[in-house]
Formats: sequence, structure tokens, C-alpha cells
Amino acid sequence: MPKKLNIGMIGYGFMGRAHSNAYANVSHFFDLPYTPVLKAACARDAEKAQAFANQWGYESVETDWRKLIERSDIDAIDICTPNNLHKEIAIAAAEAGKMILCEKPLAMNAEEGAEMVAAVENAGVANTVWYNYRRVPAVTLAKQLIDEGRLGKIYHYRANFLQDWTIAEDIPQGGQGLWRLDAAAAGSGVTGDLLAHCIDTALWLNGSLDSITAMTETFVKEREHALTGKREPVKIDDACAFMGRFKNGSLALFESTRYARGHKALYTLEINGEHASIQWDLHDLHRLSWFDHRDESIVRGWRSIHVTDHDMPYMDKWWVPGLQIGYEHTFVHHVADFLANLGKGESTSPTFRDALETQHVCDSILKSAANGSWEKIPG
Amino acid sequence: MPKKLNIGMIGYGFMGRAHSNAYANVSHFFDLPYTPVLKAACARDAEKAQAFANQWGYESVETDWRKLIERSDIDAIDICTPNNLHKEIAIAAAEAGKMILCEKPLAMNAEEGAEMVAAVENAGVANTVWYNYRRVPAVTLAKQLIDEGRLGKIYHYRANFLQDWTIAEDIPQGGQGLWRLDAAAAGSGVTGDLLAHCIDTALWLNGSLDSITAMTETFVKEREHALTGKREPVKIDDACAFMGRFKNGSLALFESTRYARGHKALYTLEINGEHASIQWDLHDLHRLSWFDHRDESIVRGWRSIHVTDHDMPYMDKWWVPGLQIGYEHTFVHHVADFLANLGKGESTSPTFRDALETQHVCDSILKSAANGSWEKIPG
Amino acid sequence: MPKKLNIGMIGYGFMGRAHSNAYANVSHFFDLPYTPVLKAACARDAEKAQAFANQWGYESVETDWRKLIERSDIDAIDICTPNNLHKEIAIAAAEAGKMILCEKPLAMNAEEGAEMVAAVENAGVANTVWYNYRRVPAVTLAKQLIDEGRLGKIYHYRANFLQDWTIAEDIPQGGQGLWRLDAAAAGSGVTGDLLAHCIDTALWLNGSLDSITAMTETFVKEREHALTGKREPVKIDDACAFMGRFKNGSLALFESTRYARGHKALYTLEINGEHASIQWDLHDLHRLSWFDHRDESIVRGWRSIHVTDHDMPYMDKWWVPGLQIGYEHTFVHHVADFLANLGKGESTSPTFRDALETQHVCDSILKSAANGSWEKIPG
Amino acid sequence: MPKKLNIGMIGYGFMGRAHSNAYANVSHFFDLPYTPVLKAACARDAEKAQAFANQWGYESVETDWRKLIERSDIDAIDICTPNNLHKEIAIAAAEAGKMILCEKPLAMNAEEGAEMVAAVENAGVANTVWYNYRRVPAVTLAKQLIDEGRLGKIYHYRANFLQDWTIAEDIPQGGQGLWRLDAAAAGSGVTGDLLAHCIDTALWLNGSLDSITAMTETFVKEREHALTGKREPVKIDDACAFMGRFKNGSLALFESTRYARGHKALYTLEINGEHASIQWDLHDLHRLSWFDHRDESIVRGWRSIHVTDHDMPYMDKWWVPGLQIGYEHTFVHHVADFLANLGKGESTSPTFRDALETQHVCDSILKSAANGSWEKIPG
Repeated sequence: MPKKLNIGMIGYGFMGRAHSNAYANVSHFFDLPYTPVLKAACARDAEKAQAFANQWGYESVETDWRKLIERSDIDAIDICTPNNLHKEIAIAAAEAGKMILCEKPLAMNAEEGAEMVAAVENAGVANTVWYNYRRVPAVTLAKQLIDEGRLGKIYHYRANFLQDWTIAEDIPQGGQGLWRLDAAAAGSGVTGDLLAHCIDTALWLNGSLDSITAMTETFVKEREHALTGKREPVKIDDACAFMGRFKNGSLALFESTRYARGHKALYTLEINGEHASIQWDLHDLHRLSWFDHRDESIVRGWRSIHVTDHDMPYMDKWWVPGLQIGYEHTFVHHVADFLANLGKGESTSPTFRDALETQHVCDSILKSAANGSWEKIPG
Repeated sequence: MPKKLNIGMIGYGFMGRAHSNAYANVSHFFDLPYTPVLKAACARDAEKAQAFANQWGYESVETDWRKLIERSDIDAIDICTPNNLHKEIAIAAAEAGKMILCEKPLAMNAEEGAEMVAAVENAGVANTVWYNYRRVPAVTLAKQLIDEGRLGKIYHYRANFLQDWTIAEDIPQGGQGLWRLDAAAAGSGVTGDLLAHCIDTALWLNGSLDSITAMTETFVKEREHALTGKREPVKIDDACAFMGRFKNGSLALFESTRYARGHKALYTLEINGEHASIQWDLHDLHRLSWFDHRDESIVRGWRSIHVTDHDMPYMDKWWVPGLQIGYEHTFVHHVADFLANLGKGESTSPTFRDALETQHVCDSILKSAANGSWEKIPG
Repeated sequence: MPKKLNIGMIGYGFMGRAHSNAYANVSHFFDLPYTPVLKAACARDAEKAQAFANQWGYESVETDWRKLIERSDIDAIDICTPNNLHKEIAIAAAEAGKMILCEKPLAMNAEEGAEMVAAVENAGVANTVWYNYRRVPAVTLAKQLIDEGRLGKIYHYRANFLQDWTIAEDIPQGGQGLWRLDAAAAGSGVTGDLLAHCIDTALWLNGSLDSITAMTETFVKEREHALTGKREPVKIDDACAFMGRFKNGSLALFESTRYARGHKALYTLEINGEHASIQWDLHDLHRLSWFDHRDESIVRGWRSIHVTDHDMPYMDKWWVPGLQIGYEHTFVHHVADFLANLGKGESTSPTFRDALETQHVCDSILKSAANGSWEKIPG
Repeated sequence: MPKKLNIGMIGYGFMGRAHSNAYANVSHFFDLPYTPVLKAACARDAEKAQAFANQWGYESVETDWRKLIERSDIDAIDICTPNNLHKEIAIAAAEAGKMILCEKPLAMNAEEGAEMVAAVENAGVANTVWYNYRRVPAVTLAKQLIDEGRLGKIYHYRANFLQDWTIAEDIPQGGQGLWRLDAAAAGSGVTGDLLAHCIDTALWLNGSLDSITAMTETFVKEREHALTGKREPVKIDDACAFMGRFKNGSLALFESTRYARGHKALYTLEINGEHASIQWDLHDLHRLSWFDHRDESIVRGWRSIHVTDHDMPYMDKWWVPGLQIGYEHTFVHHVADFLANLGKGESTSPTFRDALETQHVCDSILKSAANGSWEKIPG
């Protein structure tokens, strides 16, 4: 029988739901050494916390995250707050000896991130950051194909994350569901919110970046601020692009924006190798496109792999071939890996340390965009 | 606070899992007057029943479905057995005053189906049949567009359900997970298994069929039978196609097969109306294709609607725009509708009576294929 | 130096242009034993004939096709008239010893077609019918893949030809550019116009049909007739579908219509074999979709072959990889094959005899649709 | 009756064929005030010149382009030589009062280009540069939609030109068909060959660029040189990317490479506006993707416009709806516009002056890539 792992969840927004769903379902589909228990939900607003707990079956409620961390019946803390609270909570949780599952990006900047890495490593607690797209089966399959060396030398890595939800000028910065537009809460705009996803996947699939040069833009210069009720300068980046070089010699071209009309959450990536190329996009996440130049020439073409068969990553746990899974399953896979690794005493990537590298790239991007400079990625 | 609705599940296979998942999750996402409780799982093999109950959190186990039906703490019976047991269980459950959620197809044939309809209607119990594809949001959207009259007069309705999993000749008929190849358990082959889905959707979207002519084929003539261990004639249809006319004057062209190499579960439908046309397929179920001739000509084209926004059917309950859901969500929607309707004292389509019409079409198909005749659909 | 082959063209409509373009261009791209010379254009209306001749560079004009056939400086007659004139012209041309390139369908019916076959075979003149889609490079590639046995046993052959241009009820039957709606000129509706294309390709790719059952529909029952100016019953079929069996045991499912809103000229075909499957459609004619089950499972998927490389059929004659050709090139390829075969004393498929088989299928379709019967294909 | 316009063609390679085809066919499809006459073909190698002339029907041959320019029976000079000869020929032709149709890029660099602009403008001769992709009907349609203001404020312009034909290290630089790899003949690598196309279209669709920063890479550092037979450093850029800002405030992200395995000639562009977005790619050049946020939300999606109807740019001249044209038609359209404008005394874009702006951008790219700097585009 699996052991119980008691979860303390901080936050109740979009990510709070996605993580709760993962904890609630993982044991129905995966055989694991631990079963998550939804022990406590924590939010400043007691009523909202209770409603969230009722909806998901959390056994108890807290309104002060410090109290939650102190509770001896909590094994793991899940951080789903705005970015500006990650550091303080994570360090306190680590010091209390709790495992930590932290939403991305790890921190407001690399300096904060480094403190958090030190905290979890000093405390020796299991830790992971919810860069969930690594665990889309099609992306995991891409990793497998790359690791087998099927692409040969890599020439190009391209990634975009395109949205269109902030084009309207009357959307305020901050407030319910909108903290991502408030620089004080989010740290940055699309760089930390969207590009960070693309960077995390890229570092995983293609190794470290060597150097980059970046460009950011804030198209809507002023928005009403939720706290003051006044129009104030927007301090986040609405769009961000960078070019650069990976340490393996391949070229990087990355872009994210919330002003690409027609795209809701279009994370796309393409990798061109000497022998083969890969494409994937989040709008049809259950497909991987694959081109192999070694195919016989008259039947050579991009293959659209419908990633649903039982020999595909994670897919033996779900339904039958031809039946697709969706977005939330990536979180289930993350929890499954976390619990399986816990049983083996292994860490689950991306760890805080892994996520710190992404944070360094984000910092370099913002610095480059401010200065028009090429920046060497630290570390 | 929602009332509890105690579920007794008969069967533990693929459909048993899909339904259990729906019961387990529906209350996390939908606000409903009833919350399903996984009360009892029933299967002949006690060990398998217990394992299934453990996996999904069923509170108890039965090995005799008659016992399950007798239990006063069970409100609703979910029938996930092979087709040849549907009738007996359903009639007994109805007589015991239980609600019934029955897997499709309703029965082995229309004669059985008619008895089942009589039983539930006489007993006055809530009943529904799990033709789940009606509740793919893209398909529900199609229904909405049709009901608003946007297509105008309908000329063509085309549907295919293409698989490729029985091409290998060494797959036995019957046995673990293979009862669909055994005519004694399944009644028919692709007609009841696959075409029945297409027919259910079609009757819902386009109204009743008037008459049809059909063709069936059994490509592999003999297979080892699981019960006898001997090669025996295969009595199911490997492939089935029919042409016909709907009562609204449109033409029908339907096909299903398990010998279409390259397709795992490719249910596709297309409807051509005077003004507009619709296409959908199960391999990318979160998209609907829409063509409207009334669009300005220079920007007229097939639209690929990514059905994830919050104004799409069911989608306000899930994630954010751009993030797709998958196969199992259709069952969650079915349960949600069933529970909501229960609160309002309304029935949930397709009811047993609705499903009987599909059964009549299936019977006519098999008769036509045997005789080379055009058949008028009864009723 | 290539010899000259003097062409006499009868007709100046859409097909007259497509064929003239082929004659005008073939020698720029192909090295051939013969060069076509646009010797004479023939049409009843002298002014239109002259305008057409000027546009395309025909050296002379005739207004009586009998005169054209009598001319000793004409080597080959190209028949681009409405279908009801094919037989008379072809027989006269054959008796005059002219080669004949005849638009499809061969004739109004198989009886006429048989007379035409007898005429050209008795006269021993080179003959071919312009079923041009055989010579789309992607379709020719499909033929090559099939002939190499790559698909294994064939289970299914599916073809559709979908248009939407006659939905408006105020389109007259007959008159300028509309003879295809007039049964007296066309013989049949979509059966001879569209399905005939699908059938020709199918017989080429998959061998002969054994038996079929068909359904036709005329959605708009009356239209103004161009000759009488009065509303008269429409005698052509607006839509036609048939099911059947090929002699190789595979199942046929074919459909054509001019009432499929959203499709202009969507000829699609799909062939499912034991090992591999093929899909093609005319709206993106430069691509072939190919699925091979023998591919390694984790990278198995439908391949989209962009048929532009120099090792693809005909493509070494055109541009460079990645650059697509279009519709009219199929006629260029047909002429190129005709001229190359002429140099070798070989016939060019489809010959009149080949096209007669398509005509037999069309006749069987119309008979079956009238009677609701299964029909054995003659021959 | 149209007047004759005598063409003198210099070069016989890929572009020589594409342009000759355009001259040969334009009058079959367009009604124009001038008809091109293939008067003379010029190449240093007399035998090749004669073979080319025979293939295309040029009336005469020259082996010295100066002689060709001196001929009084030549009205227009078509320059299809490697880039390093453009300037000298164009200036001589202008001084001789000939019209000039020059292959792209205009010159080796902007300095040369400026001399050429001065020459044609001083001489007052008609001039145009063969940036043919402006005249893909789908791209011309995009221009029309943009000019009508349908996109609103533009936020993003993205373009890629991806090929994969130089990955093999044993391809020499220079020699038959390979002068594009020799910096002495080509000036630059993908910047002038591929990006120049993307830039020309962008300047046309979205106005001038303000400033850029670029990155280039030469993946294969040494190749055998055709002239010396020795391995020598490769001086062209194998890949090039730049970011920047247009004067209208939108962001630019451009990339070209010959190392993107799986792409033969994949020129793609995407424009995101406040209200609507456009996508196009050369591999399926007859389609335009269009997203309009003003569409009703439940049927909103990317539209795939099959650009074949008669109300589409240029398409009334070709076949019937649904039937696609190909690559070479863009050159036919260019000639048609050139001849029509000639009749009206108007210039045909892109003129030499238009193309000089593209040259300035290319020069800035190469300078930026060398220095790691942001560059303001001159002019």
C-alpha cells in the first residue's frame, strides 16, 4: 500500500486548481509509492480558502501560510502564489523541513532564486518547479528522440509563446486574476510568464545557452492600477524576443508576446538537426511533428505523430490509442514523477537549481533589452 | 450542499475506468445538485473487483450484480459489461427502482432495446446511454450552430469511424479485452461498436434517417476463439458502410472499419448545408471546422475553431483559452448533465428511448447488408 | 530535332485553354520526339474561334469540324466539345486516320463508348482520354508506391469529388459555360463529370470494380433551360454516391456532389492497405499523405510528402525542391507522355478502351440508382 | 493588337527559365498592351546559349552581353546573371536606353545599388526587380487586406525563409548552379538570397524598418572552391536572423537558413494586428490564413483561404475555383503588371529604388552581425 503524502496548498487560483486536480487524480492512473492527501488549503481570505477546500476536498483551511508551514501534519508545501511571495515562503518551508513544489518562475529574479536554491539544498528537502510542459507526452518524446542522438548536430532551436489577451487597453494592471500585469507582483511580463516556459524546455532539450541579445516592448504604456485606481505606467514587458547561441553551437530564436492576435496559448518549438527536425505546439499538444532526412526520399515528409499509443511517454496510463489527453495531464505526470522519484530518493527535474538557470537567462534578457547589448549567460 | 448519489458500477474495463473518472472529478469542476459517491464496484472476479475498487476509491465490492441491485444504499447502476448482459441487468435494475447509466450500444438488437425502454419507462427511473461524443465541446457547439439554423437546408451528412487494430490475423476472438470480436458477446462488430456512435450523433444533429442500404465485410474469416481455443468462423462485421436518406432530405454516407491502416479512433463527421458546413474529427477533438458561405468572399475559408474559450460549451468549467481538454472529459460532461437534469427532474439524452432509434438503424444496416436491399428505418 | 505534330483543336472553353496551354509549353520543359504545333482551332462561331486562335497562336481557324478532320495538315484531333458530340467526331476522326485526344468522359454512355473504341482500334490510330488527374505527380507517386506492393493487401478505397457551385436555384441549365447542367449535352450530372475522374484513378490504382450499388439525388428539381427560357425539370444528378467491391476484395466508397458547401473542387482519395495507407486531395495537389505501419512505432505518423523534389514523378522537369506546380501541369504531363509514347509506338493510358471501363461503371451507377439494385460491372 | 516588346535575356539558369516561361505565357492569359517577344538569349558559352534559345524559342543568340545591349532590336534587358554582374550590366543597359528587369537582389551591396538607381533614373528607363513573391495571389491579397486597414495597428511582423540544401559538407562553393555559395559571386549568403525576399515583402506590406540587430552563422567553415579545387574558408552566411522595429512601431523578427532540415523553400510570414492576423507560407502558396477577432466569438478561428476564386488577385486569368496555380505564375504576374504599367506609363514595383531599400537593410544586417550592434536603417 502506498504511503500518504500530506499536501499543504498555498493559493487557489488557476494553478491551485491545476495542481489540486493532479493530486486528486494521480493515484487513479499511476501505481506509486505515495498517495497525495489534500490536507490543507491556505489563502488570506478565509471564505475563499474554504470554498476552494470544499470544491477539491481539502481537509482543512489556513489563512496564514506561516501557520501552514508550522503544521507537523503537512509533508509538502505547494506554492501557487504570485511570484513576489515565492522566495519568502519557500525559504521558510525549507527551513521547516518541508518538501516544496513551487509554481514557475522560481522567483522574481536570479538573486532571489539563488537564495531559494541555497535554502532547499541546505535543508535537503525534495523540491521541484512546475514547468509542466516538459511532461506533455509529445515533448517528453522529443527529449527521448534527442537523447538517442537521432537529430545529429543541432543547428537551430526556435520557440515562441504567443497570446493575445492584453490587447484591449482597458484591462487594469493587478487585481483579481490580473497580477501578471503588475510588475510588483510578477517581476516581469511575458519574459517570466511565457518565455520562461520556452527557456526551461530548451535548456532541457538542447542544453545551456551561451549568450543572447534581446528586445522588449510595452505596447500599452499606461493602464489603470488595481491598487490605486489611477492610470499608471505599465512596467512589465508586453513582448520580448531574443536571439542567441547555445553552448552546443546551435542558434536560438525565441519570442513571446500577449499581442499576437489569434493565438491564445500558442507555445511552439522547432529544433533542426543535421539528420532530423522536430516541431511541437501547445494548441494541439498531443501531436509531435517529426522529419527524418534518412527516410527514403520518395516517401520523406513531416510526420504528424498522434502521441496516444501505449508505447508513448505516460500514455500507457490513460486510455486507448487515438484518444487524446489534455492540458491538465501534464501536472498529473509531474506529480507522478515526483512521487515515484521520492520513493527512489531521487530528485525531480526541474529542481530549484534547474529553474535557477532559467532565471539567469530571464535576467540576462531583461538586461540586454535595457542596454541593447549581447549578454553572456552566467553560470 | 449537494445531495449524494450513490453509484454502483458493474464492470471494470476501459469504460469502467472512464465512468469512474467522471464520477470522481465532476464535482471539482461543476456546481451540481448531486455529488456522485463511488459506493460499490461489481465484477465476477472478486480479486479484480477489489483491485478496481482500491484504484478508484469505491467503498465496497460485489461479485454478483443481482446483489448490487438489491442494495438499498445504491441509487444508480452503471452498466459497463459486454453488450449481451445489458438487457438483463437493466431490466432488473429498473424493476428495483434504480437509475441506470448504460454503456452503448443499448442492446444486442432493437428487440432487446425495446424491452429495456419499456422497463425503465414503466419504472419511471432516470436513464441514459453513454454515447459520450455528443458532449465533446466541439460537437455540442455543432449542435448549437445547427439548432440556430445557421446551415440552412442540409444536403449531406457524412461520417466515418476508422480504426486499424484488428488487421493482424492472430488476434483471437473473445478473451481479455477482446469481447468486441466475439459475436456472442458483442452482437455485431463495427456496426454496434463504432457506427452506433456516428448514428447517435447524426440522429441528434440531423434528425431521423428514412431509409438506408448497407454493405458489410469480414476480412479475416477465421480467428482462434478464446473459449474453445480453436479457429472458428468470425461472425462479426470488420467493416460496414451504408448510404441513405434522412427525413430532412439530406443524403447519408457512413462507414466504419477496423482495417483502415493509420487511423486509431478517427471518428469524423461533415455536414454540408445550403449556407454553411461543419467538420469535426476525434483525433483533434478540441477543434471544429466551420465554413460559412455568407462570409465576405475574399476572406472566406474553412475556419479552424480551437474550442477552448469560456463561451464554448462546457469550457468555462475547465482551464483558460488555448488549453485543450481530452477524451475523458466527455464523460465528465455527461455526468454533469445527468446530475443537473436530475435536480430539475428532466431526462438526459440520449435516453434509452433515444438509443433505441440508433439500435433500429443498426438492425436495418445488418439486414440490408445481408440482403442487398434498401431498408426503411422502423419507427 | 523533334518532329512536328499538328494539332487540330475542337472547342475553345475551359478545356480548350487547358489543352492549348499544354501543347504550348510541353517542349519548353520536356525533351520529346515530337513538338506539338497549334495548327488549327475549330468552333462553330467564327469570331470566337478566331479570338481563341489569336490568344493561343493557332495558325488557322475552322468553323466545321468535318472540314478540320479532312485537312491533310492535321495529325491529331483534340476533342473539347460537350459530351454529346464526342462520338460522332471521334469516329469521323478515326476514319480519317487522325490521332485523337478526347476530353473525358469518353462518351454519353458505354454503348457510344464501345463504338468509339471499335473505331480507333480498327483505324489503328493513337488515342487517349484526358483523365488528367493520373498525372498529378502526387497521384503518379501513389501509383508507383502501390505497384511496388508497399501497401500489401488493400482493404478500402475511398474517393470523393465535392463542389458547391450549383446550390443557387437561379443557375440555368445549359447556355454559356453551363452545358454540364443540361442532360442532353452532358449525359449525366456529377456521375460523368466528377465521379468519372474518381473512377478512372481508382481503376488505375486499384484495378477493376466487381459490383456496386448507388444512390443519386437531384436537389433542385427545376431550373430555367437556356434553350427554351422556361423552367424545366432538371434531368442530371446533383449528387451521386456508390458502395461496392473491387475485384481485389477491397471495399469501395465513392461520392460526388455539387452541393458540398465549402468545397470548390475537392477530389480526395484514400487507400488503406495492410501495411500502409495513402491520402491525396486536389485542393493541395502537390502533397501526398503516406502512413506506413512498418515505421518504428514511436515516430510513426502520417507523412505529408511535399512532392517537389527532382526524384518525384515529372518534377525533374520543373523548378527546384519546395516550389509547387499547379493544376495545368497535369495536362502538360499528359501531352509529354503521349508524345514520348508516340515516339516509341506505344499507347498512352487511359486509352479509349481504358476509358470505356469507366463508362461501364458510370452506366452501372445510374442503373443501380434508378433501381435500388446491386449491379455487376460488365466486362 | 498589342505591340511587341523584344526581350534580351542574359543568363540561362533557373531564373532564366522562370522568366522565359513568363514571357512565353503571359499573353495567353492576360490582355495586355504589349506582347513579349523572345528576341535574344545571351550567355558566354555559345553552345549553352543556343540550347537554351532552342528550348524556349529565342530568335537569336549572343555571347557578349555588351553586344546584346547594343542591338537596336532589343527593347528590354533581363538580367539573370550572378549578383556580381548586375551593376555593370544594368548601368550599361540603362545608358543604352533599354528597359531593365533585374533578378534580385539588386546588387552586391547598397553602394552598387545606389549607382544602379541613379543610372536607370537618369536614363528614364522602365525598371523592375524580380522579387516575385509579392505576386503570389495570396500575398497580394494580404497587401489588399492590410491596405484596407483591416488589421488595425500592427504589433508583430515575423518572417522566415528556411532551406536545408547545404547541410552536406561536400558541396563545393561555386561552380555549376552553386555560385550562391561563393561570396565573390553572391555577395552574401542567405541574407541576400533568402532574407532579401522576406525584407522586400515586409517593406511592401508593413513599411520601412527603423533599426535592427542581427546575428549570422557559417556552420560549415570550409568548402572546396570550384575555381581553385582547394578547401577554402566559406565567406557567406549559412544562417542569419535579425530583430528590429518597423517605423510603424511593430516588432520585426526575421530568420533565414539553409540548415533547417525538413524545409526546402519554406518562406513563411505572419503579421499580428490589433484586429486581425495573417499567415502565409510558400510550401502551400495558394492558401492564406486569416484570423479576424471581430468575428462572432463562437465561430472565430483561423480561416484557411484557398486563393483560387475569380475575385482573388490575378485568379480570374487562370482556371476555375478550387484549382491551384504554382510557383512560376508569380513571374507571369510580374510580367503582366510590367506590361500593363508600361502601357499606362507607370512604374512597376519593386523598382530599382524600391529594391535599394532592401539592400540597405541587408547591409545593416551584415554590419550588425559583424559588430553585435543595433543599426539604424539608412534613408
